[in-house]
Amino acid sequence: MSRSIDLAVIPGDGIGQEVVAQGLKVLNAVLPEDVKLETKEYDFGARRYHASGETLTDADLADLKAHDAILLGAIGDPSVPSGVLERGFLLKLRFAFDHHVNLRPSRLLPGVATPLAGQPEIDFVVVREGTEGPYTGNGGTIRKGTPHEVATEVSVNTAFGVERVVRDAFARAQARPRKKLTLVHKNNVLAFAGHLWTNVFNKVAEEFPEVTTDYIHVDAATIYLVTDPGRFDVIVTDNLFGDIITDLAAAVSGGIGVAASGNINPSREFPSMFEPVHGSAPDIAGQGKADPTATVLSVALLLRHLGYDDEASRVEGAVSADLGARGDSRRTTDEIGTALAVRVAG
Amino acid sequence: MSRSIDLAVIPGDGIGQEVVAQGLKVLNAVLPEDVKLETKEYDFGARRYHASGETLTDADLADLKAHDAILLGAIGDPSVPSGVLERGFLLKLRFAFDHHVNLRPSRLLPGVATPLAGQPEIDFVVVREGTEGPYTGNGGTIRKGTPHEVATEVSVNTAFGVERVVRDAFARAQARPRKKLTLVHKNNVLAFAGHLWTNVFNKVAEEFPEVTTDYIHVDAATIYLVTDPGRFDVIVTDNLFGDIITDLAAAVSGGIGVAASGNINPSREFPSMFEPVHGSAPDIAGQGKADPTATVLSVALLLRHLGYDDEASRVEGAVSADLGARGDSRRTTDEIGTALAVRVAG
Ligand SMILES: CC(C)[C@H](C(=O)O)[C@@H](O)C(=O)O
Ligand SMILES: CC(C)[C@H](C(=O)O)[C@@H](O)C(=O)O
Repeated sequence: MSRSIDLAVIPGDGIGQEVVAQGLKVLNAVLPEDVKLETKEYDFGARRYHASGETLTDADLADLKAHDAILLGAIGDPSVPSGVLERGFLLKLRFAFDHHVNLRPSRLLPGVATPLAGQPEIDFVVVREGTEGPYTGNGGTIRKGTPHEVATEVSVNTAFGVERVVRDAFARAQARPRKKLTLVHKNNVLAFAGHLWTNVFNKVAEEFPEVTTDYIHVDAATIYLVTDPGRFDVIVTDNLFGDIITDLAAAVSGGIGVAASGNINPSREFPSMFEPVHGSAPDIAGQGKADPTATVLSVALLLRHLGYDDEASRVEGAVSADLGARGDSRRTTDEIGTALAVRVAG
Repeated sequence: MSRSIDLAVIPGDGIGQEVVAQGLKVLNAVLPEDVKLETKEYDFGARRYHASGETLTDADLADLKAHDAILLGAIGDPSVPSGVLERGFLLKLRFAFDHHVNLRPSRLLPGVATPLAGQPEIDFVVVREGTEGPYTGNGGTIRKGTPHEVATEVSVNTAFGVERVVRDAFARAQARPRKKLTLVHKNNVLAFAGHLWTNVFNKVAEEFPEVTTDYIHVDAATIYLVTDPGRFDVIVTDNLFGDIITDLAAAVSGGIGVAASGNINPSREFPSMFEPVHGSAPDIAGQGKADPTATVLSVALLLRHLGYDDEASRVEGAVSADLGARGDSRRTTDEIGTALAVRVAG
């Protein structure tokens, strides 16, 4: 049997180049010999924007669509006005490729520092909706710049969009030992969207009788994330709430240095995209100081998405072992990547 | 000179009755003899809702309007469907009395446990907008309950509404030793509202040259709240972001047991309302177990709002001293209230 992975690689800005190189190193090391890995690098981000004014064109999307998956380092640079690359590249890609399952696992791994006292057990996954809610760009401004300006943002929520992500989250909860799913929303205030989410959640729950469910308002969820993060197993939530609580979740479970994410289209109609949660960190770019761990864990998510479950587990195991053995040693980006590559190969 | 305070008291549900009694005890103890305190109790909340189906009528609002300020315990009970009392009472009151400055101080007081490691210094105030954003009830649903349902929530932001709360926040920052104000928003994604907030913020900043300013996205703000809360002095933010980050802020600075809040109309055209951030906690209601500290700190905010600065400081000082001396002792609601009343009187 001959298998292959055709990967689009987007190193991007700042430390993106450095961490992606290590992600690829580990990917190469973990794949069995019979799997042919092909990669094609794309130069998106600040450099491209400054050179051409372009962020992501229809032709780019057509090129990217041909790949099995996308590995991204980081996009963003202080030289580009805030919002341009976020909306023109990152969000555009999520929407164009219908990445409705934004997957963000949080595990406090052995040896990793947390700002929380008492080193609590943390092992949950947030399934964040990726194509609706307040992220659709709906809304507008009248009388801009005057004392009578009115600016609106419209959160758009559809039964179709909510149901597919809720069902995905139930399936993930069903496959985990604790089988618990928490809906996070603000249905006491955002009553229109809240009713839709709650209603769909309760309906889909009937298909998964083994999954225990509960509901928590987003404000209260932030309290539990610092006082009792162990209560969470799988969380499903709206695009904006997911954005907020996954940054907090990353912070309490070791920081964004080890936080991985997948922007997933489960139908595989479009390639899914995997990226570390951290940004381009221009202040440390090019110095070999960046920790490639979050990228390597994103490679594990990519492997699992493409059906390489054993390889994904090996990568995750290597990261756990490496973090546990890390101590206070200061290693370069390359040294960490090589250590992980050695572990997955061994 | 004869002075007076005419206070509306809304004990509300669950532990509301118990904690408000202690708040009034401390208020009575701290006020100078020449200040005449008149109180009138109102029976709002679950009981009233079950008896009459009413939450807050126009006649109620007219009655409340006649007072100088409102002290509230807690509103909410599991017997009432989620959202009914929240929208029908709490939010209705904020909107009717134009409580646009929702003030939520966070101080980690001596002797208070925090879920964060290393007992960091925390002393900041969140000024949350209280009458706009996603809280306006704008939006709607079509094809409800069908697979084609669409539900929208509209965040409404006006230059008028943003400017007044931003100016209030700048004035508060100006009056504090560090003189620092942070705008929290998500202007890279919510570009219409984000542009309005950022633009107004930068414009008002010109009037306060001594105040240092910065901007942080709401997702990143949750990270700083657990990794470096000391960086914040005053925060100004939108209604929903403020809801979320103030619960997190309360959690890291000792929990909602000590978190106070004011729903303020600075013009005094309508009475302002002061309440603990915690809810009605029906599980421990009537057992003398509730900690009245958050209510007592809300009384301090009330005093300061009405111009009784010295008395406000005395209440805050009494709470600090009491918390510092508290140790592991388990005291009843009444014992804590009495201890605080003794301290402010002495
Ligand atoms: C960069 C930004 C558009 C993005 C988001 O808000 O989704 C980021 O915060 C994230 O969480 O991936
Ligand atoms: C009860 C609810 C309506 C309220 C809010 O969302 O504002 C509460 O969470 C708060 O923070 O005061």
